[in-house]
Amino acid sequence: MAEKRALNHRLDALRQQIDDLDEQLVRLLSARAACALEIGKVKKDGGMEIYQPSREADVLEHVQQINRGPLDDGAIKRVFERVIDEARRLERIANNEDGHEA
Amino acid sequence: MAEKRALNHRLDALRQQIDDLDEQLVRLLSARAACALEIGKVKKDGGMEIYQPSREADVLEHVQQINRGPLDDGAIKRVFERVIDEARRLERIANNEDGHEA
Repeated sequence: MAEKRALNHRLDALRQQIDDLDEQLVRLLSARAACALEIGKVKKDGGMEIYQPSREADVLEHVQQINRGPLDDGAIKRVFERVIDEARRLERIANNEDGHEA
Repeated sequence: MAEKRALNHRLDALRQQIDDLDEQLVRLLSARAACALEIGKVKKDGGMEIYQPSREADVLEHVQQINRGPLDDGAIKRVFERVIDEARRLERIANNEDGHEA
């Protein structure tokens, strides 16, 4: 019984750590999305091509290169593919709200 | 020409910001995955059920609740669904390496 209580206490502490990490992750993801939106705006104002597959490949290469685990590189890549995809989606919405077609 | 150079300079600075944010994101994702692995270990040692859908629902609720944009709640939810999915995958691999079936 005391052992079970100790286990639950340990689980609660780890879950609290995850909740704290998630709050930091949401803040960083929001800051990243704001940067991506700004990049889209700068490109649009300069009449430049918005979609640049080579930059996306560089981003995916970079995050895998700095990865030290425990997630493997494939997992890190899949998470950032989702992050990039959501940034692109956000940019499409922003452009449509400006009265431009995506 | 000078304007184009200014634009490219601005883009480079924004991309550097994104690269810096990505490095922080990789660190936090790694720390989060280590916590998730530890939770799996504590549960296994205590003979507890590993998969807890209600905790996953709480995590997804939490990140949407603290989200202030510019990503909408659906985007935040989809990113974290991917993060949780990769943590689960990592745990399965860890359990198999211990000689247990997933």
